[in-house]
Amino acid sequence: MPDARRFVELQGPLRTYRGGELPSVTIAYETWGELRGRGDNALLLFTGLSPSAHAASSAADPSPGWWEYMIGPGKPIDTERFFVIAINSLGSCFGSTGPASINPETGQAYRLDFPKLSVEDIAAAARGACLALGIDHVHTVAGCSLGGMDVLAYGMMYPGTYRDLISISAAANATPFAIALRSIQREAIRADPAWAGGNYAPGNGPKDGMRIARQLGILTYRSPEEWLQRFDRERIEGADAQRDPFATAFQVQSYMDANARKFAERFDANCYLYLSQTMDLFDVADHGGGNPEAGMRQVDARRALVAGVTTDWLYPLWQQHQLAELLAHAGASVSYHELESIQGHDAFLIDKDRFGPMVAEFLAGMPRG
Amino acid sequence: MPDARRFVELQGPLRTYRGGELPSVTIAYETWGELRGRGDNALLLFTGLSPSAHAASSAADPSPGWWEYMIGPGKPIDTERFFVIAINSLGSCFGSTGPASINPETGQAYRLDFPKLSVEDIAAAARGACLALGIDHVHTVAGCSLGGMDVLAYGMMYPGTYRDLISISAAANATPFAIALRSIQREAIRADPAWAGGNYAPGNGPKDGMRIARQLGILTYRSPEEWLQRFDRERIEGADAQRDPFATAFQVQSYMDANARKFAERFDANCYLYLSQTMDLFDVADHGGGNPEAGMRQVDARRALVAGVTTDWLYPLWQQHQLAELLAHAGASVSYHELESIQGHDAFLIDKDRFGPMVAEFLAGMPRG
Repeated sequence: MPDARRFVELQGPLRTYRGGELPSVTIAYETWGELRGRGDNALLLFTGLSPSAHAASSAADPSPGWWEYMIGPGKPIDTERFFVIAINSLGSCFGSTGPASINPETGQAYRLDFPKLSVEDIAAAARGACLALGIDHVHTVAGCSLGGMDVLAYGMMYPGTYRDLISISAAANATPFAIALRSIQREAIRADPAWAGGNYAPGNGPKDGMRIARQLGILTYRSPEEWLQRFDRERIEGADAQRDPFATAFQVQSYMDANARKFAERFDANCYLYLSQTMDLFDVADHGGGNPEAGMRQVDARRALVAGVTTDWLYPLWQQHQLAELLAHAGASVSYHELESIQGHDAFLIDKDRFGPMVAEFLAGMPRG
Repeated sequence: MPDARRFVELQGPLRTYRGGELPSVTIAYETWGELRGRGDNALLLFTGLSPSAHAASSAADPSPGWWEYMIGPGKPIDTERFFVIAINSLGSCFGSTGPASINPETGQAYRLDFPKLSVEDIAAAARGACLALGIDHVHTVAGCSLGGMDVLAYGMMYPGTYRDLISISAAANATPFAIALRSIQREAIRADPAWAGGNYAPGNGPKDGMRIARQLGILTYRSPEEWLQRFDRERIEGADAQRDPFATAFQVQSYMDANARKFAERFDANCYLYLSQTMDLFDVADHGGGNPEAGMRQVDARRALVAGVTTDWLYPLWQQHQLAELLAHAGASVSYHELESIQGHDAFLIDKDRFGPMVAEFLAGMPRG
């Protein structure tokens, strides 16, 4: 398997935001383009909950990345201008230190001994990785979904070390509805006996629980409108002849099931639990003594792009609007976009015709047309 | 425990809609008011997926029913005028024959030997119960959610035996999104090892799976707006001190969990699976050779009330509108209402100020104000 990942060790232990400590931290990352100076043209990219740092193809790994349409020579995030560094989140399972990594103090995987993980820790680990690579200051910090929350945390924690921010389909905090949705996913994983309190053997975890969690994730990340267009009530062949009275009968079920099975093989369950919870806990207000305006005033971005999608019910438009206002109050020049994609929360992965030009325009720094 | 239920045996076996047969069927029901003639003032009421026939209190059972505000003397469904008969659905576990009932041919519970269940079977069993009770014709057939689908099936299957129909928060068929949501619930139950392929001992079923299914149900039945008003991001006390790193931290989680635990004790898992699936399978078009207009033309209601809620994403407004149009094309005089409740799909249970006057007005047969 081609692999474009590189790895960097953070200098010293990482004290986590909610009172834990990691003695050593490795961060996996990928880069595209050429670094100028100590970061003048760097774009630091955070990911959503589940992707790796493989955001785009490269000579070292020609397989398409999760934001393939967005990143590359001549693309909206133009790697002929920008040095892009994508970070695999702290707590994930694609090369960065996480609950599935070996705890150097015990020689065993951390599992639930991993300290409580916060969005702030993901941001801090990325900052540490940049510093270890000699990047003091970046041009833009960008991210979508969880990655957008990482951007906000980074902005509040490290003023003076970036110029602009891009937050797509994120929010200043999670609604109780989003918390409930993720909470059910975590319950499904924990209720699977194969989870074994987190102590499953590597590769042998709660596949059923992960499958159900992912199915609910998929449902959450898209929109009813998209399902209707894609699947309507199409049946799968032979559905009525199956002996199992509750067998899959509709195409939409078949699609979700296939996707969820793949995911359950690919993603570590404990990592999923930790990363999922970070989104519930994150709150801009925590950085301002309970006041979101005061929290966001820690940000000193020159410009900010805030974008969301009409069909996103995980981080709905009113939260995008709130976020844009908070950033404007903090003094940033905010470019705010409500996009009419039908793909819901995950539209940024798919709807290149809406997202591409928007990001290109923001990074060009001048309006089109 | 006071119990107002009565039971009726259907005459002869019930051939089910999708090719099975039940040798004998018992239907549990409750009634309020006095029957006139052979049903001139009868209102036949179907329930949603999970309630029993206890729709309202009575002398025999003074505990509040699931539609307490709607049914009673002087209430919108006025039991001084109407004889109300509420049916526990075929397939349920509150007195009517279902997967948890004893199969007379084996002496064991049916479990998965219960034939595939359809909305049409619930309607047929209710029709059989009415006939067995000497009720040939009813004034109004009413129901909400699954109960509304039962109303549509009844309307198509038994023209000439009713005058008016009331369908609240139902639809002519389920969207792929609704199918997916229910499919995940069923997966969660089936993935629980305690389900044991349906062969759990009575009272000892898949509690974890049912809990997760119900949590997802609760989420589905309400709206993000309501969660925000009720819970916002309120924490539960002592959340940070808990040893379990994924313990319940927010009020919304605590609420869902408590509700789901109660439900898991109360409802039989196999019954849930069967009833849940009926909503996926139902399609008005099946009664018209694939054409919904042709299907609905079987209905000969004089008047129909169709109502839905702006915040219902299980049976969204566009489906209510579609249903109203189908019934109007079928010749019914349709009273159509889009209600701005924030309680989502389940608003009919709670929002008495919007639903009460609407139903009262329809049953009075004349506009108010």
